[in-house]
Amino acid sequence: MTDIAMIEAAAGRLDGYARRTPLLSSPFLDDIAGRPVHVKAECLQHTGSFKFRGGWNAVSALRPAGVLAYSSGNHAQGVALAAQRHGIPAVIVMPADAPAIKIANTRALGAEVVTYDRASTDRDALGAEIAAQRGLTLIKPFDMAEVIAGQGTVGLEIAAQAAEAGITGPAEVLVPCGGGGLTSGIALALEARAPGMRVRPVEPEGFDDVARSLAAGERLRNERLSGSICDAIITPVTGDLTWPLLKRLCGPGLVVREDEALRAMALAHDRLKIVLEPGGAVALAAALFRPGEGPVIAVASGGNVDRAMMARALSA
Amino acid sequence: MTDIAMIEAAAGRLDGYARRTPLLSSPFLDDIAGRPVHVKAECLQHTGSFKFRGGWNAVSALRPAGVLAYSSGNHAQGVALAAQRHGIPAVIVMPADAPAIKIANTRALGAEVVTYDRASTDRDALGAEIAAQRGLTLIKPFDMAEVIAGQGTVGLEIAAQAAEAGITGPAEVLVPCGGGGLTSGIALALEARAPGMRVRPVEPEGFDDVARSLAAGERLRNERLSGSICDAIITPVTGDLTWPLLKRLCGPGLVVREDEALRAMALAHDRLKIVLEPGGAVALAAALFRPGEGPVIAVASGGNVDRAMMARALSA
Repeated sequence: MTDIAMIEAAAGRLDGYARRTPLLSSPFLDDIAGRPVHVKAECLQHTGSFKFRGGWNAVSALRPAGVLAYSSGNHAQGVALAAQRHGIPAVIVMPADAPAIKIANTRALGAEVVTYDRASTDRDALGAEIAAQRGLTLIKPFDMAEVIAGQGTVGLEIAAQAAEAGITGPAEVLVPCGGGGLTSGIALALEARAPGMRVRPVEPEGFDDVARSLAAGERLRNERLSGSICDAIITPVTGDLTWPLLKRLCGPGLVVREDEALRAMALAHDRLKIVLEPGGAVALAAALFRPGEGPVIAVASGGNVDRAMMARALSA
Repeated sequence: MTDIAMIEAAAGRLDGYARRTPLLSSPFLDDIAGRPVHVKAECLQHTGSFKFRGGWNAVSALRPAGVLAYSSGNHAQGVALAAQRHGIPAVIVMPADAPAIKIANTRALGAEVVTYDRASTDRDALGAEIAAQRGLTLIKPFDMAEVIAGQGTVGLEIAAQAAEAGITGPAEVLVPCGGGGLTSGIALALEARAPGMRVRPVEPEGFDDVARSLAAGERLRNERLSGSICDAIITPVTGDLTWPLLKRLCGPGLVVREDEALRAMALAHDRLKIVLEPGGAVALAAALFRPGEGPVIAVASGGNVDRAMMARALSA
């Protein structure tokens, strides 16, 4: 079970290898929100998302001979780079119809990409077979103590940077939420280091299993798993490790529309000079377009957006 | 005359008010350049460019009752925010045909904008009259010791961050160059703190007065002053303070085409998740598309680009 000591240990392992990403702000965004807005620009992390933190911590803590991950996106790149920089092999299992650029990027980071046919292949069985044959350790995208601890280092930085920015007293911390690894890690860190802060998961409309789960007090699933531009944060359900943490520490959840995520991307471009993907922009969208009191800190969790999607956000 | 002691003093004044912008990198950019590329992301500075540093230092050092600046761009916003945060009035003199968004942005930062007709009005006479009437101090865009010292704090940070990144020995530092305030300030700082580094100004094709001046050993002028997408770094000629520093410490100059600046913007979007304006991207373009040996540090000096221009870069 992840705790603050594990997050502190992760911070030690990440020191000098992960970036301490900046906490950005703009008076123009404050005006839109009607309150002070601070943005934790995790899109500036290595590989363009917070996922590098969890990947690095898992590899560094477990010292596996090699790693395997299932992912077509940010987790794949985070694990691939972490493995490459530790000098161990990484196998990433991706659907054969994943975008060519994502496959190419993951290979360029030194990973071996194994593709499978979504319709005919059992991904888990294929992965288990490869892992057993080659002696690889599976790095899960969120439901794994070392991964949650790595993502939790974002929370340690938020606590320190908020104090540096003069934020004292209550504040809301909004976090894009898929399986809950980042959200629960941040919540654990802030429980210990900035207990006045309230962590609220943010999801896209139609994929709001966490908001509904927190409201119901029991773990619910998403009905759909595709059809969102916020693909980076779409997961079927929270994890066995993340759900109890989310339930104990977070909420209520917030939900934003896709057009709001696109507007947040355009405003981040104009006012902060950072590039966000739709899923990485939902917390900023909630900070800008939902009412609230006092300072708000929005985690901008990733920036791996293709040029066409960014052009769409800028022309909206 | 600006010296390292003035830059150190500027760093003290800026501490806690300007951002220490990150030094970013990506293995994908290293592959393109064929050598390690590091990017000093000054687009993440307050107001979206390094100009805030010089503006802040001048206001903080001179303690004027109020300030006046001529600018339709980054210098205007930098001076306006510096004045606002010092609680003093700022008047910005802008051409009446400046883009409405730039006038609105400058006003939103608390400045009074006085517009003039380019064809019929002597800008300098108008500015001198307003300054005399209201007791305002002119903050020049580059040829002013306190402004150069403020921009030079970028060089202090580069020296420290390069050491943290393990860059030892010779390296090239490429800087987008207009009037030479940023370039000469960085060169002064590195002369004292990292003397193995060579500072090279970068300009757009057709507006390469600094490259030609350095080659000729005498100060030359640009023939044209408009018609470049790199408008932020187009100036008639270097200054009486900046030129001797450029001549003593910098060169040879580098020149890039507009299509290369646009490609650098797109690659900064894809790989670093930062937003650059064309003039702010010329040093990165030179780092990526001009041959060279050893590590190279490119200053990304500004990100104040409108959405249409970014969409153009992304579709190129």
